[in-house]
Amino acid sequence: MQEKYSDIIIIGAGPAGMVAAMGSAMTYIDKSVTVIRENEKLLVPCGIPYIFGKTLGSIQKDEIECGGHNPLVEKINRVVASVKRVDIENKTLYTDDSVYTFDKLIFATGSTPFVHKNFENALNLPNVFTIDKNFDHLAHLKKTIDENRKIIVVGTGFIGVEVACEIASINKEVSIVGGGHILAGSFDKDMTMEAEELMKDLGINLVLGQHAQEVIHENSRAKGIKLCDGTVIEADVIILATGYKPNTSLAKEAGLKLARYGGIWVDEYMRTRNKDIFAIGDCSGRRDFITRDPSKVMLASTSSAEARVAVSSLYKVSVLKGFNGTIAIFSTMIKDRVFASAGITEKEANNQNIDIVTGYFEGLNRHPGTIPDTAKQSVKLVVMRNSGRIIGGQVVGAKEAGEMINIIGLAIEAELTVYSLISLQVATQPLLTAAPTNYPIVQAASVAFANSQRKD
Amino acid sequence: MQEKYSDIIIIGAGPAGMVAAMGSAMTYIDKSVTVIRENEKLLVPCGIPYIFGKTLGSIQKDEIECGGHNPLVEKINRVVASVKRVDIENKTLYTDDSVYTFDKLIFATGSTPFVHKNFENALNLPNVFTIDKNFDHLAHLKKTIDENRKIIVVGTGFIGVEVACEIASINKEVSIVGGGHILAGSFDKDMTMEAEELMKDLGINLVLGQHAQEVIHENSRAKGIKLCDGTVIEADVIILATGYKPNTSLAKEAGLKLARYGGIWVDEYMRTRNKDIFAIGDCSGRRDFITRDPSKVMLASTSSAEARVAVSSLYKVSVLKGFNGTIAIFSTMIKDRVFASAGITEKEANNQNIDIVTGYFEGLNRHPGTIPDTAKQSVKLVVMRNSGRIIGGQVVGAKEAGEMINIIGLAIEAELTVYSLISLQVATQPLLTAAPTNYPIVQAASVAFANSQRKD
Repeated sequence: MQEKYSDIIIIGAGPAGMVAAMGSAMTYIDKSVTVIRENEKLLVPCGIPYIFGKTLGSIQKDEIECGGHNPLVEKINRVVASVKRVDIENKTLYTDDSVYTFDKLIFATGSTPFVHKNFENALNLPNVFTIDKNFDHLAHLKKTIDENRKIIVVGTGFIGVEVACEIASINKEVSIVGGGHILAGSFDKDMTMEAEELMKDLGINLVLGQHAQEVIHENSRAKGIKLCDGTVIEADVIILATGYKPNTSLAKEAGLKLARYGGIWVDEYMRTRNKDIFAIGDCSGRRDFITRDPSKVMLASTSSAEARVAVSSLYKVSVLKGFNGTIAIFSTMIKDRVFASAGITEKEANNQNIDIVTGYFEGLNRHPGTIPDTAKQSVKLVVMRNSGRIIGGQVVGAKEAGEMINIIGLAIEAELTVYSLISLQVATQPLLTAAPTNYPIVQAASVAFANSQRKD
Repeated sequence: MQEKYSDIIIIGAGPAGMVAAMGSAMTYIDKSVTVIRENEKLLVPCGIPYIFGKTLGSIQKDEIECGGHNPLVEKINRVVASVKRVDIENKTLYTDDSVYTFDKLIFATGSTPFVHKNFENALNLPNVFTIDKNFDHLAHLKKTIDENRKIIVVGTGFIGVEVACEIASINKEVSIVGGGHILAGSFDKDMTMEAEELMKDLGINLVLGQHAQEVIHENSRAKGIKLCDGTVIEADVIILATGYKPNTSLAKEAGLKLARYGGIWVDEYMRTRNKDIFAIGDCSGRRDFITRDPSKVMLASTSSAEARVAVSSLYKVSVLKGFNGTIAIFSTMIKDRVFASAGITEKEANNQNIDIVTGYFEGLNRHPGTIPDTAKQSVKLVVMRNSGRIIGGQVVGAKEAGEMINIIGLAIEAELTVYSLISLQVATQPLLTAAPTNYPIVQAASVAFANSQRKD
């Protein structure tokens, strides 16, 4: 056993781990930084759906160097090994062939696919897959898709939808199965009707409104999916895209407290109960920014933000404010249309018994509408009736909607109200944006304001 | 003389006037609203540069209905007439054939081209033009450009640059003349080097670094421009794009106080000294959001924001906060690249003796970089050294940069600091944005933060 010391050790080299490693190397120039990861080959996690179809077309195109081409990487000790045990009291961890001691430890162990109980056994079948973020697993899934014809995707979240659309782009027969409308966690139904039509245009068979109940199999191969109502859909390949769960077995064995939904419990500064041990990214226990409830949202951008907070709080909590909870903030593209969402939906706000009004505006993304690439653009805002606080927003439009949602996200994070948005100063340009008189975020805020004044 | 009464009268039907009219009609359901405008035909002001080249190709494509297709328009009394005189004391105004009395009056009389003293006489020549926002004038300019070959554009602001690029798109010989680098009011030189190269690619002759001194003419026609160093550039058509000035002759004659730079003096709620008389848009006197100095910035989006504030304050100042000053926030596109700016530049901050640091980051607008339409994207932030307040930002990238600048604009307007931006939660998506680990606004904030910690 080799014995080694590093001031800062990070377990995991996903987005959270790498941002923490880079940030530590940049901020604490005199400290040694080590990242220990399990897999030699690293992938861009959000890029995974695009390896299956026309967009990237190969898994190699989604591969990244550990740390990219940043010169800071040279400073970081990068180790490929599996951490077997962490001894928090003695600030020591063990891999197969080494013992590391450390001053600060950051868990960034990520997440693994979540599969409903009814489907756990089916994972032993050779043609049933999850979207595990593992190179060899995904290379095998890609090969299996390429060699087969009928594919079922179970799950209608972002990953399920993106995987289904990509596979449809290479002329497979794709069905997608889910209990409600697509992307239901992030969008109200009125904002995703168009998305469902676009998926049908791509030739995808939408099986919505009832859950998949079990995998049907024969001769040790899956034959299809049986729905709640007994209908069977046949398939050559079944992909379970039913979410992820925090990967915390190591932390649990080390005696760290877990939060509800299984993430490692952390405070505002990403510290566990032990001030030298941090947890960031998908493996950490998150709270929702708006409801303060435990949150299941897993996002690489949130993970990166958490990593930055952890770095700045590693030795002393610095001026940087803590992480005020997770804002669900997503975007995706179906055909040439973008669907983006931030914060809470109208439906979820009603479920949570929050007194809200909404504001909706539909306009064009260029002005005048005679500009050649003009497309429809619509914005919905979810606003607290009395305070006017923006707590959610959804945008449907062309590619720029992917950045517009970040304007709404910032408004949520900065705790702004419709009153500020109504007089918001924005850059508008004929070739790039909606008209200044009809800028959709401002107009939706005006409508929400008018709705809040109305006596029901 | 016909005598008429309207509760609310708005003079001018540009962006400010129309947003005020629509807003008044929506907010004050029982009040009568009248808009009086001079020109029968209305244009989208920001679309004007695009009538000259390939993008729109005709002035008709930039025409808009007064108020568009909004059903509220029916409620608004729309009059085409020239207002001759306003009697504020008696709440009366006069057109050629009518006398109107009112309760509330909003000046939205806009702006007219500004021309340096040396050039005023040249405007009498038939081939010297300004970009006046007048249908017949612009139709005549377009015809003259189409019939000629060599064009000089004097002025390197947004309008000058956009007009030059559009004219170059129809194979004219275009020169652009200005005293410094292009777009110098909104960008530091490091951010517009690329823009100058792109303009050269379009075949435009860039004559920068010295001012145009006078128009050379012969037989009552302009022949060209003489520069400060005596060089003469010949041309068939000369376009003076040297800015605009508030159109306030009516307000001045009515006895209203003017601010520095000639705009109508208004308070935080867009009220003149008389609480029943408002001024909004380019004709109003503006203050800069950051320096609080008088501001010359004229923007349709700012005008729209001012209109909304005026509407909400028309009868009683409502909960809506006032207008905290003008943020210069612009975007434009040269070839396929977008240049966008908000707030103050590094150069201007130094001129104003503000203690700043900057943060610069260059990355890609997609992730991984193997996504087909990946392009470079760079962000520069200007930050107050001690407080960390964001006071300026510049973005260069593909089309989505037109919305990214609105994220920075909102950060400026909401008085956010780099500390908030470092842990900003953003939506990132392979097909739409930079990587979560390298989101350029967050990365530029991190760099600015690191720079602020450095002891010089």
